[in-house]
Amino acid sequence: MVSNYYMPTRILFGCGSLEKLHEQELPGKKCLIVTSAGQSVIKYGYLAKLENELKKANVEYVIFNKILANPIKDHVMEGAELAKKEKCDFILGLGGGSSLDSSKCIAFMATHDGDYWDYVCGGTGKCQPAKNKPLPIVAITTTAGTGTESDPWAVITHDNQKIGFGYDGTFPFLSIVDPNLMKTVPKMLTAFQGFDALFHSTEGYININANHMSDLYAVKAIELVKKNLPTAINDGNNEKAREYVALANTLSGFVETTSGCTSEHSMEHALSAYYPALEHGAGLIMVSKEYYTVIAKSGVRNERMIEMAKVLGKTDANDAMDFVDALCVLQKECGVDNLKMSDYGIKEDDLPKMAQNAMDAMGGLFEVDPYKFTVEEVLEVLKKSYK
Amino acid sequence: MVSNYYMPTRILFGCGSLEKLHEQELPGKKCLIVTSAGQSVIKYGYLAKLENELKKANVEYVIFNKILANPIKDHVMEGAELAKKEKCDFILGLGGGSSLDSSKCIAFMATHDGDYWDYVCGGTGKCQPAKNKPLPIVAITTTAGTGTESDPWAVITHDNQKIGFGYDGTFPFLSIVDPNLMKTVPKMLTAFQGFDALFHSTEGYININANHMSDLYAVKAIELVKKNLPTAINDGNNEKAREYVALANTLSGFVETTSGCTSEHSMEHALSAYYPALEHGAGLIMVSKEYYTVIAKSGVRNERMIEMAKVLGKTDANDAMDFVDALCVLQKECGVDNLKMSDYGIKEDDLPKMAQNAMDAMGGLFEVDPYKFTVEEVLEVLKKSYK
Repeated sequence: MVSNYYMPTRILFGCGSLEKLHEQELPGKKCLIVTSAGQSVIKYGYLAKLENELKKANVEYVIFNKILANPIKDHVMEGAELAKKEKCDFILGLGGGSSLDSSKCIAFMATHDGDYWDYVCGGTGKCQPAKNKPLPIVAITTTAGTGTESDPWAVITHDNQKIGFGYDGTFPFLSIVDPNLMKTVPKMLTAFQGFDALFHSTEGYININANHMSDLYAVKAIELVKKNLPTAINDGNNEKAREYVALANTLSGFVETTSGCTSEHSMEHALSAYYPALEHGAGLIMVSKEYYTVIAKSGVRNERMIEMAKVLGKTDANDAMDFVDALCVLQKECGVDNLKMSDYGIKEDDLPKMAQNAMDAMGGLFEVDPYKFTVEEVLEVLKKSYK
Repeated sequence: MVSNYYMPTRILFGCGSLEKLHEQELPGKKCLIVTSAGQSVIKYGYLAKLENELKKANVEYVIFNKILANPIKDHVMEGAELAKKEKCDFILGLGGGSSLDSSKCIAFMATHDGDYWDYVCGGTGKCQPAKNKPLPIVAITTTAGTGTESDPWAVITHDNQKIGFGYDGTFPFLSIVDPNLMKTVPKMLTAFQGFDALFHSTEGYININANHMSDLYAVKAIELVKKNLPTAINDGNNEKAREYVALANTLSGFVETTSGCTSEHSMEHALSAYYPALEHGAGLIMVSKEYYTVIAKSGVRNERMIEMAKVLGKTDANDAMDFVDALCVLQKECGVDNLKMSDYGIKEDDLPKMAQNAMDAMGGLFEVDPYKFTVEEVLEVLKKSYK
């Protein structure tokens, strides 16, 4: 098997790295800061710190702060218009995956005509090829979940379709991973994001495109989540725990770059495409037990499931289902073992259209699954996951 | 601690990857092929395969085949002149570290005036800054030793000074690591090169700049060398062993990129700067026992030395000297436990000037050593290593 390694982003990693931004080579003189509609980046002083760094670096900026937790196409288009109007020469995302993913798509649409959905593949997207180089992207992550700082991917929702987009042009030019910025993430969000990171690695490890490099990153990330996520949840100020979970997340981005997600992600996207109040990580946790049970029972990844179970602490693992058990133990330890779709308003009647949506909007990930799901089997996963 | 990750090279890895060259985006339309003065690339058909790939990709080429095992400045200058004269728009190295390192420096000098030594730091180098972007570099490695395919470094000898050079501009644009090309490497060279890879990782692991990413790569590379180098030496056609040693080498390049070598390399460079018939890996093996004994006895890296000893198979390690013991066991297993400087013509009287040369030409690596050597202590390492 020939594997293809490419991850050209420069990453500053460690507590205090935000304060080193002004010493870095930046890709332009005026940026659009893309950040959340929420108040955390202001409340905790992160935006002020960033503004100070940009001033020291003599970089002008304009702020676009409308991004929703499950980011939408309209804000990509609005941000790109603003970037064009203000003649920004790079885009800087500050926040969680939603702000960073949006900044990637804004950077793309700032150099492309038409509509963002013209370039998206899947669902009603027109899958047109990129025509120009996007503006350079700087990504400053304040959460440890999506791994977007070390991958080219962005996920945007439009018309009940939550679809991934990305290619070599959407790798950030520079990413900053400063665990100090993560200390203020609330308990439950820390857990949801940590499991998102975990699943990027577990999916990348069972993916048919797994390879030496992705395996190296994935196993380490799974180990780091197991050893540190419970502490990061229960003692948010624990610097070491935050640092190691941040590292797990960045490594999981490397996994997404070198291998990739599987249809567990497609299934979740269908849930939050219809119910955008559902946090992505929470949706993944909801479907995870049943998704991995299908993989385990199919027998297609026995060795790798056993290996992951061992890394999750079940040292005597000898069956693929041991991974499912170990995963459930970790979810209990992290207080996320009883999440209910119904708590987010999801109805059992929604599930058939969601199963179809998973396949229509994010069909690509089914192609790289080690087991080939039918739409009926996807529905079965969703039904069994429903509480 | 804030670490800085940057490794922008695309790497195709795996048996058969050379045959995928024509499918890749190449950085130009006419390249200078830089390869060894030896006959192996012709004898084993690697050059013919490459020419076929370039033809399929509609890329013109000129061949420069003068590179010596310990490559010299004159050939860098000659290659750069030829690249300019022939209007090549990229440089393609085919061979071991010598050809690949030379191609990096030729790419640099093809866009710079003056002499290569004007830009080298250390010894009599003038340490002038880069003025222009080097030509893009494609690196096709036929050995598993220097890790140059995944780092920016190049080592060239001039006037008894063997000095490293490199910066962000000298990362290859594309590297091809095809273990099929390594099956013809003779036993002893396989061993020497494998230990070079090993030492890039052990040095990077004890280096004061070691960090999460370099540690991840280093530990894996050490494990892979331990488990596979003896087989690769004794059964050169063993595809899996060749593949894992090639992977160890590429990972060791990542270690050199994210952490770096220490003065063990400076000491070896001094030996082969005066005696270019000495293979770099052989020289490293010769000084390694005494170098790591000083580190172990100094007590500055106890935990990491014990960790490395465990990875090398001494599972009950509890003392830094256990690493030295485990290293000696591996050297014996690989048939390189009794290499003699005197067999290469080195005289004991040469050692004082070599100790001074290590510090003068490659002083930078002493700065990142975990223990601060004096020139007397370097001489002591060389004397104790002398046979």
